[in-house]
Amino acid sequence: MTAEAPLPPGGTIGILGGGQLGRMLAMAAARLGLTCHIYSDVPDVPAFEGALHHTVAAYDDEAALLEFAKAVDVVTVEFENVPAEALATTARASAVFPPVRAVEVSQDRLIEKEFMKSHGIAVAPFACVDTERDLEAAVETIGTPSLLKTRRLGYDGKGQVKIATRADMETARAALAGVPSLLEAFIAFEAEVSVIAVRGRSGAVSFYDPSRNRHENQILAESRVPSGLPADIEDAARDIAARIVDDFDYVGVLCVEMFYCGADAERPLMVNEIAPRVHNSGHWTIDACIVSQFENHVRAIAGWPLGTTARHSDAVMTNLIGADVQDWPVLAGRDGVAVHLYGKREARPGRKMGHVTRLF
Amino acid sequence: MTAEAPLPPGGTIGILGGGQLGRMLAMAAARLGLTCHIYSDVPDVPAFEGALHHTVAAYDDEAALLEFAKAVDVVTVEFENVPAEALATTARASAVFPPVRAVEVSQDRLIEKEFMKSHGIAVAPFACVDTERDLEAAVETIGTPSLLKTRRLGYDGKGQVKIATRADMETARAALAGVPSLLEAFIAFEAEVSVIAVRGRSGAVSFYDPSRNRHENQILAESRVPSGLPADIEDAARDIAARIVDDFDYVGVLCVEMFYCGADAERPLMVNEIAPRVHNSGHWTIDACIVSQFENHVRAIAGWPLGTTARHSDAVMTNLIGADVQDWPVLAGRDGVAVHLYGKREARPGRKMGHVTRLF
Repeated sequence: MTAEAPLPPGGTIGILGGGQLGRMLAMAAARLGLTCHIYSDVPDVPAFEGALHHTVAAYDDEAALLEFAKAVDVVTVEFENVPAEALATTARASAVFPPVRAVEVSQDRLIEKEFMKSHGIAVAPFACVDTERDLEAAVETIGTPSLLKTRRLGYDGKGQVKIATRADMETARAALAGVPSLLEAFIAFEAEVSVIAVRGRSGAVSFYDPSRNRHENQILAESRVPSGLPADIEDAARDIAARIVDDFDYVGVLCVEMFYCGADAERPLMVNEIAPRVHNSGHWTIDACIVSQFENHVRAIAGWPLGTTARHSDAVMTNLIGADVQDWPVLAGRDGVAVHLYGKREARPGRKMGHVTRLF
Repeated sequence: MTAEAPLPPGGTIGILGGGQLGRMLAMAAARLGLTCHIYSDVPDVPAFEGALHHTVAAYDDEAALLEFAKAVDVVTVEFENVPAEALATTARASAVFPPVRAVEVSQDRLIEKEFMKSHGIAVAPFACVDTERDLEAAVETIGTPSLLKTRRLGYDGKGQVKIATRADMETARAALAGVPSLLEAFIAFEAEVSVIAVRGRSGAVSFYDPSRNRHENQILAESRVPSGLPADIEDAARDIAARIVDDFDYVGVLCVEMFYCGADAERPLMVNEIAPRVHNSGHWTIDACIVSQFENHVRAIAGWPLGTTARHSDAVMTNLIGADVQDWPVLAGRDGVAVHLYGKREARPGRKMGHVTRLF
């Protein structure tokens, strides 16, 4: 694929990762007449369903990665922690979007926060914590309540310890266990909000309407649009997302999760984290928009014109976590509700099994 | 699969036929966590893209059909002329929806018309034509303009000859060539309209809004909703569809194509033909409804509750026939338009390569 010409129908998109995001990307690609090739380190993953070609190999298997990259026209990622090295390897043999740098920055909470700070984007006060001594000093500076988080490999609340008061220091010290971490001030936010941005190869940027998100047990439970936030705050949220994707010279969908601290707060919006990929808080776009986040990611990386991000309906997306999925016969019978199940056999606690979107 | 319990997520749907209808059915099934197994007599068909399992074998290969039927939980069809015998064979080893009888009736224009007549449903005047002598007599009775059609294996205008005046008799005689046929009066209709009905295993019936269809060169070019027809005519169209699916004890989606002859006509609606499957004139439901015709067909045959057939938008669906598909870069850039391409490599004239749906 050249940098200029769009990938024509019949072309192949390579996806590193085989989860539900890959599955929904593959379905969106198929709709456009594009084929997908899924690379996963485990067999029988949800994304194999919608894709014609599959590779099962480790993410550090250089030969397999290169063979995969040669077999496809463009490589992308579908999960949080795809090793940036794996992505860099595929880049030797294929076009790769999003840029490796965006993936690298998002994989290290410290680098991510420093990136935001250097761009004048507000984040929660934070301090680097490598040793117990650092931890003491950080709690001194940041105060409590605060959160000790590993710099890398955290998602859905994994790798986090809350320090509500100094009494939790012992637990925090034990959790640290020499893992490079950071301490973040706990933000008493009014709402969690996210913006799904998409940037094309031409540099064109579009945004879906910001969603208001609710987490339970640190896992996304619900996203709703409209967010109910003031219009100027929504504009500010989009502006933050625009600065991020432009700086990365980003191509594809990127999600920015933010805390809304109230219109009267000194910094009404603080970035919590970014995800350089399609995102759970954008699943509502499948049913409430003509062109979903998945299709727009595919369009962007394939060099197609971006599709509209306009909404034809209001929507509430609710995740089906673990045993929630057992309610499928009831959910399928509810009027105005779109049911999405990911084909996972085992409904383990905390596992995302599907989602439902209610349109209004 | 028992007659009573719905097929749970993880179950497998077998589809006879591998075209774009099978492809869109497979995508709809995957959304619900159901897997598809495509049976096709040719390799590399559009439906393989969205389905995890594929069989390539002839439609008269009894052993292959039985093996396929045993490997799935329910069998359905996606194309016009799947041999009813093939369907009957799979029925020995699996649940099969729609009922074989509905497929048989729809495959023979004469039986189809007699079925309508016996249910008091208006059709164009017709006469059976097996011999040249029959043809003479039929033209005498039916008059001109009229259409000579083969009883079996016709679609998209194939197997039809128009007899505009008696001067066309020679052409008609040559076309007949001993093939069992029928002569139909040519109906000067005001509009072509179709109703997509879905009937569940419980006997519940729902309808999508009737669409107004436009054909070019006897191939569907465009379907639009709302149809613009008077409300009582739309009610009558739904009523006709209801009588048909109820008589067949039908399960799944069935399309009834009708001629609208004007509110003042003696019989304002005449059934042209039925298709016991998802239908091109219902493709708009993918983008304009929460639950598409494809998902509702899957829901029905899997014993799930039917999904809503309500529309959130007005829509115009336009087919991309043959070289039309080459406009994809322009179409993909149009606002408010959903693009669907079927992954067919060769854009032969008259071949359905994809469709676009514009929402309003």
